[in-house]
Amino acid sequence: MPDFGSLFSANANNMKASTIRELLKLTQKPDIISFAGGLPAPDVFPVEDLRAAANIVFDRDARKALQYGTTEGDDGLRDELIKFESKQGVTIKKDNLLVVSASQQALDIVAKLFLDPGDYVIAGRPTYLGALQAIQSYSAKVLGIPFTDAQDGFDMQALEKRYAEAIAAGKKIKYIYVIPDFQNPAGFCWSLEKRQALLDFAYETGLPILEDSPYREIRFIGDPIPSMFQLDQDGANKGVVINLKTFSKILAPGTRMGWIMAAPALISKFVVAKQAMDLCTNVFTQMWLAEYMRTGKLDGVIASTREKYRVKRTMMTDALRKYMPNRDDIRWTEPEGGLFLWVTMPSFIDTDKLLLKAIERKVAFVAGSGFYIDEPEHNSMRMNFSYSSLDQIEEGVKRLGAVVAEAIREHEKA
Amino acid sequence: MPDFGSLFSANANNMKASTIRELLKLTQKPDIISFAGGLPAPDVFPVEDLRAAANIVFDRDARKALQYGTTEGDDGLRDELIKFESKQGVTIKKDNLLVVSASQQALDIVAKLFLDPGDYVIAGRPTYLGALQAIQSYSAKVLGIPFTDAQDGFDMQALEKRYAEAIAAGKKIKYIYVIPDFQNPAGFCWSLEKRQALLDFAYETGLPILEDSPYREIRFIGDPIPSMFQLDQDGANKGVVINLKTFSKILAPGTRMGWIMAAPALISKFVVAKQAMDLCTNVFTQMWLAEYMRTGKLDGVIASTREKYRVKRTMMTDALRKYMPNRDDIRWTEPEGGLFLWVTMPSFIDTDKLLLKAIERKVAFVAGSGFYIDEPEHNSMRMNFSYSSLDQIEEGVKRLGAVVAEAIREHEKA
Repeated sequence: MPDFGSLFSANANNMKASTIRELLKLTQKPDIISFAGGLPAPDVFPVEDLRAAANIVFDRDARKALQYGTTEGDDGLRDELIKFESKQGVTIKKDNLLVVSASQQALDIVAKLFLDPGDYVIAGRPTYLGALQAIQSYSAKVLGIPFTDAQDGFDMQALEKRYAEAIAAGKKIKYIYVIPDFQNPAGFCWSLEKRQALLDFAYETGLPILEDSPYREIRFIGDPIPSMFQLDQDGANKGVVINLKTFSKILAPGTRMGWIMAAPALISKFVVAKQAMDLCTNVFTQMWLAEYMRTGKLDGVIASTREKYRVKRTMMTDALRKYMPNRDDIRWTEPEGGLFLWVTMPSFIDTDKLLLKAIERKVAFVAGSGFYIDEPEHNSMRMNFSYSSLDQIEEGVKRLGAVVAEAIREHEKA
Repeated sequence: MPDFGSLFSANANNMKASTIRELLKLTQKPDIISFAGGLPAPDVFPVEDLRAAANIVFDRDARKALQYGTTEGDDGLRDELIKFESKQGVTIKKDNLLVVSASQQALDIVAKLFLDPGDYVIAGRPTYLGALQAIQSYSAKVLGIPFTDAQDGFDMQALEKRYAEAIAAGKKIKYIYVIPDFQNPAGFCWSLEKRQALLDFAYETGLPILEDSPYREIRFIGDPIPSMFQLDQDGANKGVVINLKTFSKILAPGTRMGWIMAAPALISKFVVAKQAMDLCTNVFTQMWLAEYMRTGKLDGVIASTREKYRVKRTMMTDALRKYMPNRDDIRWTEPEGGLFLWVTMPSFIDTDKLLLKAIERKVAFVAGSGFYIDEPEHNSMRMNFSYSSLDQIEEGVKRLGAVVAEAIREHEKA
């Protein structure tokens, strides 16, 4: 191939391969217990009910399902999504909805619509890597906001301060990215007060909030807190929140199916952007999932997922208590939902290096540094509890505890 | 919704809604005979064989098919694509292949990787609207090249001239976009000589060729001409051609499935870009189509599609001869493949206006002006022959002939 180097765009030069996805390949060897991925437990997939739904599409609507569809999304699926949201107290119409190829496509669409090179997005420290990749792929940057010690949302004083400094420095901020429910990577859940405070901040500054809610339905302890989309809708109703939802964690990620909820004027812009990206989302899969939703069985799958993940999360935190060295500077979150928890190590432990030792001992996690766009913290790790079996969770944490204990001994010798 | 106007990106402001897709909604009323869309004939979809293949995935591999997959694409599907290409004389390995959500996503990926605002892409006049939209959505522009009167490819003298002028004017050209086989909208097919000439031009200038081949397999008259990807591979093998293929025209567009063939170093860049766009393509559909390809029945579907479209194209050109006013300045292409033909009207007829009258008479086409990014020609129309039945083709062309005859009478009166 000739050297096309000078022909690539600035965006291409700002794109970063996901170190996590590269690492996942390493950790997929069969004898490694991996807490690294973000995979749902495959035993929750309702295979036979999904098969039945697919066969109904073949019976009734095959030629429509195999043909091109509209960019907005299949009418039948959008009807089912409206009902699904309504049960959670969210009232939307078809013009509030765009069907997408799961949330990552939504992150790409929103980034493309708002970001010029050099623009900023406000986001948590740490936050979801895929959102950071989407932002970077348009040569934009992140204004990182720390969470409170109570882990109940952004440190609002820090937000006000960093925002004022950025504006004073002439930086263009385009939106605020948050995952209020059991965020990736740390499992933090925003309190009602903090959600309302961020919404008020959005009203004051005129910035839209991009609320990413892939784990919202996977709350296994306590009661749901209204989403920011809902708080806006039930309150001032200014339409500033763009809410992303997906089937990836509540049903099956291999279907690559999700939806955006937003004000109709924004949805119209998203539709034009999506047209140039892929014309329309997989039509067969849209009609297949609509058919599956019509069975009414999705709620049961979600309930069973919650229960399984509650048991697994408890197993992981129990194992951490049992196998991790007992020190004040080793801590972990105990999330009430989602797929991940976040372990903080003593400041002298660099989890990027620790990971290599862990892989030698046949256990894997994701080093926390990957979840910061700049000035990463190096002493944390993301641990997934949804995918491994209970036995694997106990054995894997045991191995990890030994790796950590050894790192501490080596540090104390030095 | 607050006025987010000042927050949108320059790219957002350069995005144009497809007038064609908007118009399609108008033309979808049941009593209109529409030659406007680009839809395959639904009676070629092998519904029962596709159902059987989907059920095999449910039997054998459901939990894998419902889980996340790699960005590169399913190994099984890529193996089948390698065999499929091999039968056409194209030799590729897995690292030459990226599975995508059909060709439009590939057009988006390539545009994102190469185009900075203000950059240029060389493309035909006219050319595929979706490619133009992808280019515009990165605030880039098109250097339009006319076709020869023989309709066998670019006017190479015009290309050399426009290229030299653009370089002299400091314009940055990033790639050359072509659809050598039965292009959309006009149905032109490039001769072997013209393909080789463009390849030589690419070698000289160092520009990559983006060769879009959705209709390549739908040749219903004559013998295949090697693709530019193939000519490069069998000749100097410099790896300058990026070739896009899709299941949309050879099997079923509702599966949203296609593939990019290119040099491994380019594929690696595309993979990083795609990660930030959607993580991976629909895994279930990839494994489903791999299973379908293993039946060996795809070749039969393609053969039957060719035969059906040959008959329909002949019906349409016969009807044009029968019903269009007999004038030297009314002409049409007689393509040897693909889904479209291109009708040129007398210069005093504006087909944008003619379309409104045609819709009143319950027949629709796409006005040619939509296929030019600048200085559109206004006296042409794209007519699709794949979707309508033979009776509809005859009746629709009859109606259209009457509309044209009336427009000529009105012009002669004025």
